[in-house]
Amino acid sequence: MKEVKVGIVGFGTVGAGVAAILLRNGEVIAKRTGVDLVLTKIADLDITTDRGVAVPDGILTTSVDETIAAADIVVELVGGTTFARELILKALRAHKMVVTANKALLAKYGKELFAVAMENGVDIYYEASVGGGIPVIKALREGLVANHIQGIYGILNGTCNYILTRMEQEGADFEPVLKDAQKLGYAEAEPSLDIDGFDTAHKATILASLAYGEWFGADDVYVEGIRNISQLDLKFADELGYRIKLLAIIKQLEGDVQIRIHPTLIPKSALLANISGVFNGVAIDGDMVGRTLFYGRGAGREATASAVVADLADVALNIAHQSVHRVPAFRAGSQYAKVTPIDDVTLRYYLRFEVRDEPGVVARIAEILAGKSISISSFVQHESGSGCGVPVMILTHLAQEKLIKAAIAELEALDVVCDKVKLLRIEDI
Amino acid sequence: MKEVKVGIVGFGTVGAGVAAILLRNGEVIAKRTGVDLVLTKIADLDITTDRGVAVPDGILTTSVDETIAAADIVVELVGGTTFARELILKALRAHKMVVTANKALLAKYGKELFAVAMENGVDIYYEASVGGGIPVIKALREGLVANHIQGIYGILNGTCNYILTRMEQEGADFEPVLKDAQKLGYAEAEPSLDIDGFDTAHKATILASLAYGEWFGADDVYVEGIRNISQLDLKFADELGYRIKLLAIIKQLEGDVQIRIHPTLIPKSALLANISGVFNGVAIDGDMVGRTLFYGRGAGREATASAVVADLADVALNIAHQSVHRVPAFRAGSQYAKVTPIDDVTLRYYLRFEVRDEPGVVARIAEILAGKSISISSFVQHESGSGCGVPVMILTHLAQEKLIKAAIAELEALDVVCDKVKLLRIEDI
Repeated sequence: MKEVKVGIVGFGTVGAGVAAILLRNGEVIAKRTGVDLVLTKIADLDITTDRGVAVPDGILTTSVDETIAAADIVVELVGGTTFARELILKALRAHKMVVTANKALLAKYGKELFAVAMENGVDIYYEASVGGGIPVIKALREGLVANHIQGIYGILNGTCNYILTRMEQEGADFEPVLKDAQKLGYAEAEPSLDIDGFDTAHKATILASLAYGEWFGADDVYVEGIRNISQLDLKFADELGYRIKLLAIIKQLEGDVQIRIHPTLIPKSALLANISGVFNGVAIDGDMVGRTLFYGRGAGREATASAVVADLADVALNIAHQSVHRVPAFRAGSQYAKVTPIDDVTLRYYLRFEVRDEPGVVARIAEILAGKSISISSFVQHESGSGCGVPVMILTHLAQEKLIKAAIAELEALDVVCDKVKLLRIEDI
Repeated sequence: MKEVKVGIVGFGTVGAGVAAILLRNGEVIAKRTGVDLVLTKIADLDITTDRGVAVPDGILTTSVDETIAAADIVVELVGGTTFARELILKALRAHKMVVTANKALLAKYGKELFAVAMENGVDIYYEASVGGGIPVIKALREGLVANHIQGIYGILNGTCNYILTRMEQEGADFEPVLKDAQKLGYAEAEPSLDIDGFDTAHKATILASLAYGEWFGADDVYVEGIRNISQLDLKFADELGYRIKLLAIIKQLEGDVQIRIHPTLIPKSALLANISGVFNGVAIDGDMVGRTLFYGRGAGREATASAVVADLADVALNIAHQSVHRVPAFRAGSQYAKVTPIDDVTLRYYLRFEVRDEPGVVARIAEILAGKSISISSFVQHESGSGCGVPVMILTHLAQEKLIKAAIAELEALDVVCDKVKLLRIEDI
């Protein structure tokens, strides 16, 4: 049986998971693929801490160069965008295949890395960069290859989904749930990458790029996190039949592509609305296949490692069958006109703010919205609030975002509106 | 760009869908794969009826031989297990690659066809045979290749799911909903293949075979359809927090494999329980990845054609990169001990029957169950029934099926039990 040598750089959580799978499930993988994945070297600065994997003698090393030299496939699991980039470039230039889970790196330097892989006649695979263990990249670019992609709606960050689920189920506020999530290891000590939406944005960049044949950059993506979601928003949403999820939305409308990350009201009946806790889910709409959905663990040692090892098998098959670049890292071929700026999108909106309980207030609000041709689909005013007045919640029919923002400026200038207007977006998926 | 010639045999619903996709989305598929899929011939006995696809002149033919001769890849879409088998064998022996959606054929003759494909150095792909447009075969054998498969739970037949969904939502009985489904085209005039579970069984055979490395046959599968599901069962299930779905259950326990198709009570909170109408869903549990789920349209012209064209792209890449058998039709390599007979499985059960409303009835029922060491988890008796007595519903804790059946025989022999005992199985997924 053809042997393919695997070197891992980065013996952290996922690195240990990959080693564990290769040692534990190597035999069944070989039965299924006809290729034997042999763990050859694991490089890390710390090779003494116990990671719970019984690695055979002679595998652990502090030398990245040694690991690259000994491998047919180099697995980059160090994270970050500096050393990881250098090490991948070094591996590619040594004509080694590369597998990585590094979404931040791909979102920023994908184009460069893919070009170097092409020049050097090797593959770079990255299934684990989006959706953890869910084989969504393979599904998107192979399974759904026959489709123009009309839209992608993704719950791509387990930390955010865990926090929102707990806030909703326990009636708790954001800050205490975040603190508890940090204590339990579901959120980082520095949580910004997750809760401010950047991690989701990196993953959305990758999905959008594969869907539309252009490697998009950070400037193409609108990003808004979940820090400002309050218990009141969750309750109003619930009353109206919605749940709030941090969604990556990638959508083609009249040839233009939208790529946006923001908390989104989606109907409770939608399958995505029923994905709770740390799980991820990606709905993909194709012009032929219709709605599909892919669900699973978006993070965690074994789940992420499952996707890394699937890539290893794919790349090893390319080595064994000399079919490098059969499905290359990325194939350009634009299938869209331009990226729509967030102000130009047309959506349904949720507005929430407090007003002083005076006669004529509703009329003045309605007048401002009518002045921007914004049509109201629901209007709820509660009897008592916890802030400066009583809470008002409005759902609109379809309206352009720039008109909504202009209306909000006018609303906030009213003397009867006593706080900032909270704006959330709705997707009736 | 490399051109790969495609010949379709069978210009029915799916055949027309495949032609439509190749003509409409051919350009984007070529951009993504670097291979041009050229529709060369379509063979059918009837080449005059309008199928709603504007096929270029000279493509339609009544000659299968001409179609095979002109193609690099032959798409079999005639259905059935006689002519389809002959035509695929002929194509394979002419060293043509084959794509098929024919689950009945694969379940019955898969081994033979795969062997002939190997001998002749060609591939045979069949993504569309399970789950319609959902790329679940690719997910199972490539995306989850790193995992021992612990279990698969599939809603694989859109007709059954449509009928059960309508019965549940409308409080309607099986027969009128089936009749309406037939009128609307969601069920065949001869519905047995779908509603008696055979179609689901064919698909389960394929999934089980890929999961466990042995091409299973009809004898390995326990099959029970939805004909006997009554409104009362749906209501009792609902009361207890369950929905009833026709599930394909493939499971490995202590090395032994279970493959069974039957109506199943699953908790309403499970994602699978929320898959309604004609949609399909497949939950796959891997030892590393945990629970994953794949969802989409299980049938229909475009959805099924989407999967057929994904196979065409895969096979065309194998032609272009000379990587035939890179992922072969099937690779044997048993990963299980034996198939568990249905009487030996251990499950939770739902029993429903009518009893005469007399003193001591409950005690006599409980005594019989206790005599078989069957423990009761719920017991519901309603005040009035529509049959010979009052309905009783029992949920059990885990028990072996043969003991349940023995208990049922004793229950039915009681003079106070006035009808047959309805048995349903529970999966607390």
